[in-house]
Amino acid sequence: MRVEVVAIGTELLLGQIDDTNSAWMGEQLALAGLDSHFQVKVGDNTARIVEVLRTALGRSDAVICCGGLGPTQDDLTRVAIAEVMGVGLQADEEMEERIISRFAGRSRRMPENNLLQAKRPEGAEFIEQMPGTAPGLVCPMVFEGDPKVIYAVPGVPWEMKEMLQGTVLPDLQRRAGLNSVIRSRVLRTWGESESGLAELLADRIFELDRIGNPTLAFLASGAEGLKVRITAKCDTAEEAERMLAEEEARLRELLGPLVFGTDDDTMESVVLQMLRDRSMTLATAESLTGGMVGSRICDVPGASDVFLGGVISYSAAVKTSVLGVPEGPVVTEEAARRMAVGVRERLGADVAVATTGVAGPDPAEGQPPGTVCMAVVVGDPSAAGSVESIRVRLPGRRRQVREFTVITVLGMLRRRLLDHDTPGD
Amino acid sequence: MRVEVVAIGTELLLGQIDDTNSAWMGEQLALAGLDSHFQVKVGDNTARIVEVLRTALGRSDAVICCGGLGPTQDDLTRVAIAEVMGVGLQADEEMEERIISRFAGRSRRMPENNLLQAKRPEGAEFIEQMPGTAPGLVCPMVFEGDPKVIYAVPGVPWEMKEMLQGTVLPDLQRRAGLNSVIRSRVLRTWGESESGLAELLADRIFELDRIGNPTLAFLASGAEGLKVRITAKCDTAEEAERMLAEEEARLRELLGPLVFGTDDDTMESVVLQMLRDRSMTLATAESLTGGMVGSRICDVPGASDVFLGGVISYSAAVKTSVLGVPEGPVVTEEAARRMAVGVRERLGADVAVATTGVAGPDPAEGQPPGTVCMAVVVGDPSAAGSVESIRVRLPGRRRQVREFTVITVLGMLRRRLLDHDTPGD
Repeated sequence: MRVEVVAIGTELLLGQIDDTNSAWMGEQLALAGLDSHFQVKVGDNTARIVEVLRTALGRSDAVICCGGLGPTQDDLTRVAIAEVMGVGLQADEEMEERIISRFAGRSRRMPENNLLQAKRPEGAEFIEQMPGTAPGLVCPMVFEGDPKVIYAVPGVPWEMKEMLQGTVLPDLQRRAGLNSVIRSRVLRTWGESESGLAELLADRIFELDRIGNPTLAFLASGAEGLKVRITAKCDTAEEAERMLAEEEARLRELLGPLVFGTDDDTMESVVLQMLRDRSMTLATAESLTGGMVGSRICDVPGASDVFLGGVISYSAAVKTSVLGVPEGPVVTEEAARRMAVGVRERLGADVAVATTGVAGPDPAEGQPPGTVCMAVVVGDPSAAGSVESIRVRLPGRRRQVREFTVITVLGMLRRRLLDHDTPGD
Repeated sequence: MRVEVVAIGTELLLGQIDDTNSAWMGEQLALAGLDSHFQVKVGDNTARIVEVLRTALGRSDAVICCGGLGPTQDDLTRVAIAEVMGVGLQADEEMEERIISRFAGRSRRMPENNLLQAKRPEGAEFIEQMPGTAPGLVCPMVFEGDPKVIYAVPGVPWEMKEMLQGTVLPDLQRRAGLNSVIRSRVLRTWGESESGLAELLADRIFELDRIGNPTLAFLASGAEGLKVRITAKCDTAEEAERMLAEEEARLRELLGPLVFGTDDDTMESVVLQMLRDRSMTLATAESLTGGMVGSRICDVPGASDVFLGGVISYSAAVKTSVLGVPEGPVVTEEAARRMAVGVRERLGADVAVATTGVAGPDPAEGQPPGTVCMAVVVGDPSAAGSVESIRVRLPGRRRQVREFTVITVLGMLRRRLLDHDTPGD
């Protein structure tokens, strides 16, 4: 089953918006066992959309259109599909009522134009999911003697995603005669390179190559860590979920604490949860990251029950006056340790992290860009082993150095909390 | 002149990499006065690349291929173009030497495979610019009786950009018979909606619609503000630059302080420069933004001569203990003012900004998400008018609310500094 993705919108061609939908859909299609060989972007022009759809139907079994389903004169996807099908557009009363009540439920005035969205090409069905106010379409047809299907989903990413997963992918799999269910899970890792992970998993990769199911894929994601995706293909969802769980357990055994989470977990969300579980509070002292550690932590809803706050000690004077770091060089492990201990005490937190270093582009204190010192303190700093620090040389430019610092110091805290749980480990 | 962009690489289809090159090229083509109606992504498969190229040549005058020019067996762009041209690939000795010396100059071993890159379809020329080790191609041909041209550039963004601007765009303009030079400049604005700007500029827009040169375009960029792009088309670069300068002056007169910068300026970089010009230092006190104001400021190289640091007072206790905010409700203008005054004093800065509010998803202190209070203090807080605060209701979800807060509070500081310069204004 070959599926072509068509993104519709002049703003995509002009570079005013990046088309990230197509890439996401490509990934989902691959995961669902469906081939996708072409992806096309076309502007808001009926003749050109029709041309693209005809070319796509000539070489693919199914087409997913994304965008151009809004209520304005520029939204031409419905019109173009009807033309390709050789049918007219008809108003659907049920959908009109659904749209009207959608607006009413939100106490918003409905512009008359929105009823255009209740039109569908004759013979097409609406997609059941309708998270926004734009309905999606399933349009089965015969094209040059062969049965084909065009789907239309809105360009708003979360609306598109809900319709793709709820209707389009299952419908495609049914048409493809794929009775198998495909499920995947991502293990998020931090602390090893791609080749390092491949080495740790070498025997298992070899075995899986032989068995063929589940499959593994690595995806390097910079300062987000390295992802290992497990994909299972089974007769039922239950079997697939069981296979994922078994493989996850096996990989976790091989990778140990390198795995910090799964799927949508981030290092921030994981560390926050670990602290929450331990009823511990957190403070940050940041120099080169300039508030990025705190900002990332505050991206996680509910951070406030763990994160008290922090001090951005960008200048040396603030390191001394607010955090009590002795005067002298500040790109040192000692300065990082003093910053962590200082902010923990100053804010009355249980745990603190600190970053200091050279983000670049210029060297500082004779150290090249990328030189970073970090420290973590858990509990009373006078107790043996409660303060830990490292000095690293990070790759990349200013922004990357700072991003790598954030995940590195939070990863350090995570490992420290894990070790804390299992003394002698 | 219709130009089609073809991005080549299986990883683009699988969503492992977002294709941002096509959007960038689309913008450049539009700026150069060239039409681009279609953009296609295709995987590393010769037959499919050939098919895409033939379709593109059938409906466009020129095609730009991006990617697939590396030295591996997966790099098939050269092969596919030769097939479409109906010619063979020939090794180019001069290019072989250039590649060899490129590696030698970097003291790196050259893998034998890299010499594959010195092959070109018969009749094709290499692109002069060669920032990396992959040469680009200009391939003129006759397709179905019409003169056409295919360009091939690498997928590495900075290599692609250098070749596009250095060779591809000028060559396209020459072929299109466009002797004119096109230049553009972006005015960055903050503080008005798109319709608000359009109203302020209504007379000028009307006039420019009549004259036709330069042209104006609006681009809403969320928490980056609203961009107004001026594009001038003239016989010489000097004339174009003069036209841009004149139009910029005219628009600045109409928009006044709404314009905070041009092209790559950001609110952060502009505010830092204003403070630097005034020899003033800055401190931040952040609650809902959690360090994002500081982090954005530290994104700008050289921030350290202005930015001393800040306090992330996420919890109410830290607002009180470190910044001296009285106990009580903290989503108030009074709390924001106390935070700003407190951090200015605590860090010994000349100027401070503060943010406090409800990022969401849940309400706080009975206030709905998006409720934000901000304050700015410039100079001695006991002087009349030195402290300023606002209370706003920002749209969007957690992340957006925080991003809008950052540019809003920095925009407030900018206006405050401007007013400071012109008392009585």
